[in-house]
Amino acid sequence: MPSPLNDAALDQLFREARTYNAFLDKPVTTEQLHQIWDLMKMGPTSANQLPARIVWCTTPEAKERLAGHASDGNKDKIRHAPVCAILAMDIDFHEHLPWLFPHTDAKSWFDGDEEGRKVSAFRNSTLQGAYMILAARAVGLGCGPMSGFDNDALDKDFFADQPKWKSNFICTIGYGDEESVYERSPRPDFDTFNVIL
Amino acid sequence: MPSPLNDAALDQLFREARTYNAFLDKPVTTEQLHQIWDLMKMGPTSANQLPARIVWCTTPEAKERLAGHASDGNKDKIRHAPVCAILAMDIDFHEHLPWLFPHTDAKSWFDGDEEGRKVSAFRNSTLQGAYMILAARAVGLGCGPMSGFDNDALDKDFFADQPKWKSNFICTIGYGDEESVYERSPRPDFDTFNVIL
Repeated sequence: MPSPLNDAALDQLFREARTYNAFLDKPVTTEQLHQIWDLMKMGPTSANQLPARIVWCTTPEAKERLAGHASDGNKDKIRHAPVCAILAMDIDFHEHLPWLFPHTDAKSWFDGDEEGRKVSAFRNSTLQGAYMILAARAVGLGCGPMSGFDNDALDKDFFADQPKWKSNFICTIGYGDEESVYERSPRPDFDTFNVIL
Repeated sequence: MPSPLNDAALDQLFREARTYNAFLDKPVTTEQLHQIWDLMKMGPTSANQLPARIVWCTTPEAKERLAGHASDGNKDKIRHAPVCAILAMDIDFHEHLPWLFPHTDAKSWFDGDEEGRKVSAFRNSTLQGAYMILAARAVGLGCGPMSGFDNDALDKDFFADQPKWKSNFICTIGYGDEESVYERSPRPDFDTFNVIL
């Protein structure tokens, strides 16, 4: 039976981890991107849908192209980060269910129901986005997740050949610069947003 | 600078963790629910929105009431779990932003834009749901997240007094019974769903 993780691990994942607005001048390797994927892909999604699709922008050209779709306050964060991930979702994720969820015909649950697929892709790719953030922290990296960008413009630019891929959020990744962190915003007590029945 | 977590921690959070369909006959304490919240609340949400609202169903009566809204295959999983969490979202989360994000007037970004709030509440409460799953694993518990229930019926029953609270997903929590785990579904290689630019 598992025990609680030690305090250092809980601090690294949750309690001391922060959102970084800038990163140290130290590269993130392709191997680290694989490590993040190999952890995050293990997290649960409904019927193993795994609808997330990730474009890891690592070159100055890719980051500049992405920054062009971001809000003014986010452009430089993207340009100067070692990596910026586009966490997208495939609305046609169900086409992969015959091999991702092989023991039953889960594809048929979603055939012809694009509205239902949009909801499911949004929920499950977002779960995967959170797994990505915590996986990056687990391998010693820091994150700067952002929603401030033009989703439609990004999709037209990056996913012209994949019209069923839709951006969800973007996230800078690197070795966090502690100087770039804002003051911690308040976190509510249990009783504020929780009910026990 | 943080180092990667050790293999035992990565196994417990991601690699060896599984979705449980049943749990050992060992209670989950109120203190453990507080521990989960105190970890998950530290995870990042856009503008510190923290839109998740959680109803922890712990009594036979609460679990039976919840099971009444679940698909047939999920009813017994809920009834027999030590706890089943209803992970909901508050569409009017922006009313709390003056104290949750005090350094700017973030509430004004969302005033009058209920459609935008629905998207933001869905994305950010789902991130919090993933933090909840990984926080539960981090404190030594196991989870069984589920989407198979009637959201509207659940909301009418549980949130009659909170019409802006909407259920997102539900999740059983306890000490996982390894006998209840299905065969692991396939997980794709990096190149299947990732692109490096």
